[in-house]
Amino acid sequence: MGVPPLTLTEQAQMAMMLEVCAVTKPGNVDRGHDYPDTWLEHFLASSLFCRPAFERAEQKKGTIGELIREATLLTGRHRGGNTHFGAFILLVPLIMGRGIEGACQHIRETTIEDAILFYDAFAHTAVRVHDSDELDINDPAVADKLRARGMTLFDVMVHSAPMDMVAREWTNSFHLTRKTADLLKEDGRGREAVSSVFLWLLAEEPDTFIAKKFGSERAGRVRDQAIQVLAGQISHTEFDEYCIRESINPGSLADIMIAGLFVALTEGWEWDL
Amino acid sequence: MGVPPLTLTEQAQMAMMLEVCAVTKPGNVDRGHDYPDTWLEHFLASSLFCRPAFERAEQKKGTIGELIREATLLTGRHRGGNTHFGAFILLVPLIMGRGIEGACQHIRETTIEDAILFYDAFAHTAVRVHDSDELDINDPAVADKLRARGMTLFDVMVHSAPMDMVAREWTNSFHLTRKTADLLKEDGRGREAVSSVFLWLLAEEPDTFIAKKFGSERAGRVRDQAIQVLAGQISHTEFDEYCIRESINPGSLADIMIAGLFVALTEGWEWDL
Repeated sequence: MGVPPLTLTEQAQMAMMLEVCAVTKPGNVDRGHDYPDTWLEHFLASSLFCRPAFERAEQKKGTIGELIREATLLTGRHRGGNTHFGAFILLVPLIMGRGIEGACQHIRETTIEDAILFYDAFAHTAVRVHDSDELDINDPAVADKLRARGMTLFDVMVHSAPMDMVAREWTNSFHLTRKTADLLKEDGRGREAVSSVFLWLLAEEPDTFIAKKFGSERAGRVRDQAIQVLAGQISHTEFDEYCIRESINPGSLADIMIAGLFVALTEGWEWDL
Repeated sequence: MGVPPLTLTEQAQMAMMLEVCAVTKPGNVDRGHDYPDTWLEHFLASSLFCRPAFERAEQKKGTIGELIREATLLTGRHRGGNTHFGAFILLVPLIMGRGIEGACQHIRETTIEDAILFYDAFAHTAVRVHDSDELDINDPAVADKLRARGMTLFDVMVHSAPMDMVAREWTNSFHLTRKTADLLKEDGRGREAVSSVFLWLLAEEPDTFIAKKFGSERAGRVRDQAIQVLAGQISHTEFDEYCIRESINPGSLADIMIAGLFVALTEGWEWDL
């Protein structure tokens, strides 16, 4: 048997694994820190469980809405709640499109059915929804509303982009995903680069998951702390402790980190130098 | 889409993941401790990379020798060296046999060709071989010797059993694997049980990987320390620090732990209570 190169599916699973194992990672689950109900093992179980959905994306068997929903349901086979919903929003089109350029094409071809499936997947996660969101996932009439407005999944992301940085990646050619992959490749240190690049992401834009949970002022404060770490004014560890103390987890930036890791891996970035 | 139950392949991958993430685990790689050249991420990458070999075992496509070799080559796609060679010796027949009883049947049906493939796989790992082992894996004539002696892979394990506790599992109906699975199920705490059961294993029999590397006296001392932890005479952490200081890793018991976790998972043991 010759040894085959890693498939796109395996590279996406590796991206999920490398993200969650990185240290130090302010606020989020990592090697040194579980949440009470969501552990390192849940994130790693998700990276194993989602595989069939990624494989179908790689074979282009299924639509983006179907496959985001499938990945979400498959990872629901543990008790750790939502771990990667945002990551799947980015990884499914990136796998299907074999990178950013192809993904940009696929997301523009999404349909109203994709939007309905996406909301159904959303309803299976424990993701907090902004109170003022008029497309309430708990509203059984959401499918009717999407149909009446003729909203595709791409339209949903455009609608969500101002308040959700994962959705925003769909609307700006995966801007932060691209930048994350480039920084990983430029760094040249392999896995050691992950937490440095994540710090850069934290300093670059306020995390919209934090903004939804705690308000935009808090998200801004977390960003300011990241800037202070980069400026050497506080330590990486102090920043981590602040986030843990306040139960602040920059979950959307972690999703973008995963997407960036995936793109970097597909472009030859090596993690274990 | 209905959500399918975990496949045997996924349960075997979960066993590998849960073993390496367990804390505190004296001497071995865990969440808090990498080796210089073999990291937590390498163990987790292996648990992703070996999947196609496990799937073929689940579908009974291939022989035990072929699939141990395939899993070993697939996990060679990182720079962390050998992580799970011993685990594959146990997992491949356990997956193929859907548990211990079936595994016992499959291993007795192995052939001389399986033995040759096994030695070829062995040659791809960085596993240290006992100097006095007359079947030297670096000996190109090993295939001829196996053929001349008519040794099947089962015969090789019988030959190795006195000095290798992983091989011994093949000869005694997976005795420690069975006991490990039973203890996990009896404990009832899910993942918290893993390090307790591992401590029991350490106290039960001296690790033959340590014996091969450092001699049987050292392996006995490690076992004595485990007994002292169980007796409350030293702490789990002190034991871990001793192993790390002395570069002692009970690798064969970790392989058996993985096999026990797999059997427990297939029998309904739940890890995330």
